[in-house]
Amino acid sequence: MRPVGERAALVARSRGPVHIIGAGLLGASVGLGLRERGVDVTLEDLSPTTVALAADYGAGRVRSAGDDAPALVVIATPPDVTADVVERALRTYPEAVVTDVASVKLAPYAELVRRGIDLSRYVGSHPMAGRERGGAIMARADLFVGRPWVICRDGETPAEALALVEAVALDLGGVLIEMTPEEHDRSVGLVSHLPQVVSSLLAARLVPASDQAIGLAGGGLRDTTRVASSDPELWVQILGANSAPVVELLDAFAADVAAFADALRDPARTGAKRRIADLLSAGNNGVSRIPGKHGSSERFTQITVLIDDSPGQLAKLLTELGELGINMEDLRLEHSPGAQIGFAEIAVLPEVAERAVADLVERGWRTL
Amino acid sequence: MRPVGERAALVARSRGPVHIIGAGLLGASVGLGLRERGVDVTLEDLSPTTVALAADYGAGRVRSAGDDAPALVVIATPPDVTADVVERALRTYPEAVVTDVASVKLAPYAELVRRGIDLSRYVGSHPMAGRERGGAIMARADLFVGRPWVICRDGETPAEALALVEAVALDLGGVLIEMTPEEHDRSVGLVSHLPQVVSSLLAARLVPASDQAIGLAGGGLRDTTRVASSDPELWVQILGANSAPVVELLDAFAADVAAFADALRDPARTGAKRRIADLLSAGNNGVSRIPGKHGSSERFTQITVLIDDSPGQLAKLLTELGELGINMEDLRLEHSPGAQIGFAEIAVLPEVAERAVADLVERGWRTL
Repeated sequence: MRPVGERAALVARSRGPVHIIGAGLLGASVGLGLRERGVDVTLEDLSPTTVALAADYGAGRVRSAGDDAPALVVIATPPDVTADVVERALRTYPEAVVTDVASVKLAPYAELVRRGIDLSRYVGSHPMAGRERGGAIMARADLFVGRPWVICRDGETPAEALALVEAVALDLGGVLIEMTPEEHDRSVGLVSHLPQVVSSLLAARLVPASDQAIGLAGGGLRDTTRVASSDPELWVQILGANSAPVVELLDAFAADVAAFADALRDPARTGAKRRIADLLSAGNNGVSRIPGKHGSSERFTQITVLIDDSPGQLAKLLTELGELGINMEDLRLEHSPGAQIGFAEIAVLPEVAERAVADLVERGWRTL
Repeated sequence: MRPVGERAALVARSRGPVHIIGAGLLGASVGLGLRERGVDVTLEDLSPTTVALAADYGAGRVRSAGDDAPALVVIATPPDVTADVVERALRTYPEAVVTDVASVKLAPYAELVRRGIDLSRYVGSHPMAGRERGGAIMARADLFVGRPWVICRDGETPAEALALVEAVALDLGGVLIEMTPEEHDRSVGLVSHLPQVVSSLLAARLVPASDQAIGLAGGGLRDTTRVASSDPELWVQILGANSAPVVELLDAFAADVAAFADALRDPARTGAKRRIADLLSAGNNGVSRIPGKHGSSERFTQITVLIDDSPGQLAKLLTELGELGINMEDLRLEHSPGAQIGFAEIAVLPEVAERAVADLVERGWRTL
């Protein structure tokens, strides 16, 4: 943990409790993480059951009338009520710094500005962490460890308020990224919301398909449609609260797809193949920008090892890789429909790939 | 290996060698697999270097004038010359059954019909196997193990010819799937070609993005854009040879994206949220149809375990899972940019998930 983080926890302690409004997955996880660091945390939620549950799980204590005024208020309510709750918190706790962790940042901020609220004590933020299922029952103190945590500031945000929110984010293990609300919403639209919609629409195309066709599915289809199993209700709210940037991205993407279809409509036409190749090459360039373990996965060589369909086999493989001194940069499992065989796709540095294959084969593994 | 497969290898042996035209990745892999089963394999390729290399790797011997007529000819040339090579093989070897392994099936077949060739000895096929890099140097005898192998027949295909091709496919470990050329091309268009184009176009959207925006990328973006790193040249040829079904799919998909954008344009409008939820739910239904290890991954509960960024840790985790008697249905690794922490996402049966988490935590693992 970075020292500034620990210092901040002290600041938070010295100035009064941290008050969390909304004791669901994110709120309760913030509470658990701060409690682990000895911070006094009070909890509030519209649902008495939820707040009691979060308290039972150790996320903090239910706030009562006699409690000290909070130094920091963390709002972890659904995006569509964030603005209201922020306004109320700023009025109720005139000394407190107020932050929220909503997954969209512009809509609540713009609404607060529209209402003419003084936002000098407000710092919007968004930890890029979540789980398939929500609720305090799924909360974890280390939910934010190693995850990007976006902090939104404007010119007026006082350094002390900013430092407090940033330090709490660091205490919880987050990786700080500073953006304006507009930058945040456009960014998550591109790297999270657009891929979700595209994956869902691609998966939806499989509904009327024949079993035979789907029987030909490989790793490519599984990868591109994996997030299509996300919770529709959650995403209706997220997309609804970030509709402008997402609609813009979807319109542009629909045009991309139409342009590709046009290039492919008559592949024999002069320049058509060149156009198709250029569009596919742009995809190569785009994917190479995504940070992986050590930057782009294209830096590594894939080795595919056949394994019996049993977890013991995989553990054995990884243990032997360790024994052989082969550092595995990444690992993916693929299962082949209709056969009790698994494929372990291991990424290694190109310079060790040949030796790795030779050593594995010598130990009796089958590599593809 | 299924008995019929072994029987077929005997058939192949008894009636003369298997002759492979095109000694690249697929051709050489077929040769290696059949040689392992004692089948006499002869090789031919436009490139003397390629055919000599494949022979050196043990995929068979270079065919010479004195050799017996082949019982089976396997054509593993690029799709755009498949029809010519099939026609020539049928004329050159009037007793042989002729098959091809091209990744598109209708275009070559239609061309042969157009030329009025007697196709009673021809059976088109397509093993759904490949590797990032091609060439005999990458060939493996078990390239086809556990992979779907499509066999295209029409009413006229004699049972003996069909049995020979199917049995060779079984000998090489393939999982047989019977389709017409039209069904095959539409099917791979849906489960392979459309996802490839969509993933490439999605990844291309990242090219102009800011480093900050891409810094927010999570597992969803990595999954949906993974295949975008495929070889553009290879895909220009595949897509060009299957343009009609793919264009149809792309047009429909572009309309899906536009329709979603329209629903999202005014999310407050009556019925808009319902419309968005329905489209996302269709994605749930589609992804649940994709066969995984034991059918849909939605059948399983995800447990996320934090691991130090070292392969030894992962092997330790999997070994302990085995010791705990927890059967891992699937595994994915995710790395968190900016932190030396990895997340192992383990799929287990819902009924064991709670115990698995408790046991892992007791052993000192951190689960999310």
